[in-house]
Amino acid sequence: MSDAAVSPLAPKSFPELPPVAGVQLSTLAAGLRYQGRDDLFLAFVPEGSTVAGTFTTSRCPSAPVDWCKKLIDSGAGRALVVNSGNANAFTGAAGDAAALATAEAAAKALGVQSSDIYLSSTGVIGEVLSASAMAEALPALAQGLADSVPDKWRASADAIRTTDTFAKGASAAIGDTDCSIVGIAKGSGMIAPDMATMLAYVFTDATIAANDFQRLLREGVESSFNRITVDSDTSTSDTVLGFATGAGSYQYSDSTEATFYNALEAVLLDLAHQIVRDGEGASKFIRVQVDGAETDHAAQRIARSIADSPLVKTALAAEDANWGRIVMAVGKSGEAADRDALTIQIGPELVARDGVVYEGYSEERATEHLRGQNVDLFVDVGVGRGSSSVWTCDLTHGYIDINAGYRS
Amino acid sequence: MSDAAVSPLAPKSFPELPPVAGVQLSTLAAGLRYQGRDDLFLAFVPEGSTVAGTFTTSRCPSAPVDWCKKLIDSGAGRALVVNSGNANAFTGAAGDAAALATAEAAAKALGVQSSDIYLSSTGVIGEVLSASAMAEALPALAQGLADSVPDKWRASADAIRTTDTFAKGASAAIGDTDCSIVGIAKGSGMIAPDMATMLAYVFTDATIAANDFQRLLREGVESSFNRITVDSDTSTSDTVLGFATGAGSYQYSDSTEATFYNALEAVLLDLAHQIVRDGEGASKFIRVQVDGAETDHAAQRIARSIADSPLVKTALAAEDANWGRIVMAVGKSGEAADRDALTIQIGPELVARDGVVYEGYSEERATEHLRGQNVDLFVDVGVGRGSSSVWTCDLTHGYIDINAGYRS
Repeated sequence: MSDAAVSPLAPKSFPELPPVAGVQLSTLAAGLRYQGRDDLFLAFVPEGSTVAGTFTTSRCPSAPVDWCKKLIDSGAGRALVVNSGNANAFTGAAGDAAALATAEAAAKALGVQSSDIYLSSTGVIGEVLSASAMAEALPALAQGLADSVPDKWRASADAIRTTDTFAKGASAAIGDTDCSIVGIAKGSGMIAPDMATMLAYVFTDATIAANDFQRLLREGVESSFNRITVDSDTSTSDTVLGFATGAGSYQYSDSTEATFYNALEAVLLDLAHQIVRDGEGASKFIRVQVDGAETDHAAQRIARSIADSPLVKTALAAEDANWGRIVMAVGKSGEAADRDALTIQIGPELVARDGVVYEGYSEERATEHLRGQNVDLFVDVGVGRGSSSVWTCDLTHGYIDINAGYRS
Repeated sequence: MSDAAVSPLAPKSFPELPPVAGVQLSTLAAGLRYQGRDDLFLAFVPEGSTVAGTFTTSRCPSAPVDWCKKLIDSGAGRALVVNSGNANAFTGAAGDAAALATAEAAAKALGVQSSDIYLSSTGVIGEVLSASAMAEALPALAQGLADSVPDKWRASADAIRTTDTFAKGASAAIGDTDCSIVGIAKGSGMIAPDMATMLAYVFTDATIAANDFQRLLREGVESSFNRITVDSDTSTSDTVLGFATGAGSYQYSDSTEATFYNALEAVLLDLAHQIVRDGEGASKFIRVQVDGAETDHAAQRIARSIADSPLVKTALAAEDANWGRIVMAVGKSGEAADRDALTIQIGPELVARDGVVYEGYSEERATEHLRGQNVDLFVDVGVGRGSSSVWTCDLTHGYIDINAGYRS
């Protein structure tokens, strides 16, 4: 938790997250790095629960990511242990040993196998997580397990924060069943495409086979976390894990797939948007929609090129309708675009059509849109039918303040 | 020219550039956008001069870039007209017409063909360059032509500035002949790989065939302008042009290629470094050297990933030896790296070896290096023999100040 004020884009309050049958939660202040706050989070699920997960594409992943990747193919698991303050990344063999020791201590405290324990660590890179501190804390952490009532969700979301200025949670009912999906997440910097830099955990009391859960989680991550960017930086620790306890009445079937997927995607997208809304220094929540590209993938690349451009982001921070920088970002994406068929729109205001400024364009009206907290940019590159969108935030002095002082 | 103070990384003074036989220069205040300063630059070279050029990879290039690309295959030309304040980019057919009108006006004033006239425009995107203002100014601009004495070089380097805080020039003798290569450049933002966002012009009194000149210019740009980055943004207008008058004694031959190339590369590299030193808001001049990659290309991609990372750049601005962010940037590059064989060095200080912190590492000594204006980062990713380097600058509040207010 940084000293920075709560993001101006934060939701008004933490949502009232419903209990998920079968899920038990616990948090603890172990003083690993932060003082006076919880820095450990434990979730425990019943035997027979299924687990799905997706992880960072970084070529230098953290020890806990390596650990989880080895387990995830089983599709099974009983618990999740997360610590904040230390990423246990770039810590070599000692980091792997700390991850193993943590899993073993958790397994012992919970009476399960170490291969049942998923791990995440978030915080500073390059310092080995203290295996003894983790081992020491785990019995008390396990002792604190209790049903996943709203206060417990809130405490869990708080325990995994690092530079986050607000706790992040979301939930959705699975159709009109009594089952739901609840998620918590952390992340505000080192956020970029391909999983962004974040941790997110979703829990459901639905019954769903591991392979179906994995497939739908991957699809949901693709259209949520993989379409946000704060600063184009990708973490060594990105992790999304899903746990399905099967303790509720909804049973997954092909015919009701949409019911389950819609709830899952809603939760993932809500959490992803909250991460952007907590983007370091963010003062605007920005959607970049690109149409008319050769393919959806090309549209995504163009949208990211716009969303990652420091020049576009600083112009938006200044509420400056400097759309020339959007043209620049389209051009540098490397994807096909017809300069003379390009259309650009800022909010409701048509700025350029067929590669030139639209005759009725009013910079005043475009600026009016940019003065709001929610900014929409639309670009049609005029060469095909590919379409995609990206969510991002602006680049302000606050980003530099936060990142020039994170460790001190 | 912005109101910003001169970059702290600027050279102490503009160099004394020697006259280049055959080259005539002129500048003029046409009031296209800026007031009280020259905004037009004209260079005129003798019949028989050879011309080489490389241009932006942007898919949305400016009208003058399109114009130059059509001419450059001829390898010939007589003049260069550059205006600052307006990029004549994303201006559709009207922009092309303005470019043509400018070339025609210049040709008439100089008594040559419009296909002899190379053009560049730099400044705000999306506004059509005034063809009538250009046509009106060109006779007086041509009238002002005079030998390329030092003061004329200085005036020319000043006339092409936009947000530059200092004028950029460099020269080198061609071996021990009486011939030389002189270059001027502009650029400080929208600087990125693949030509960076800049204009650079080199002039020599050597005699060199167009195809040799083109080949060597391309090679020189590859190892200079294509290895700098300020903000990862790529301009619509990047242009490097070379003019060889043949008015001096040096005649290019295969056996003396190195003599010519060394002088050319020295001038291009000097100009490229000056652009980084004028990086918007820059307070540090940073070299990122990557070794041990699969290929030189992979090393270049990893070096760029580090050099473009906002988290690395803000840490360096804060003189914070937060090397975990370097690991992050290596990981996100997508290139092969052996996490457990990674070596990182900050200046003379070995930080990490074999994937863990080096036992003798002193953060104090690393910080001491970061307190200087010149920062060297070395990374060995431990998988092969590929090697490359990139020059960049840090990311400071100054960058945001400049870019949030460029148009106003």
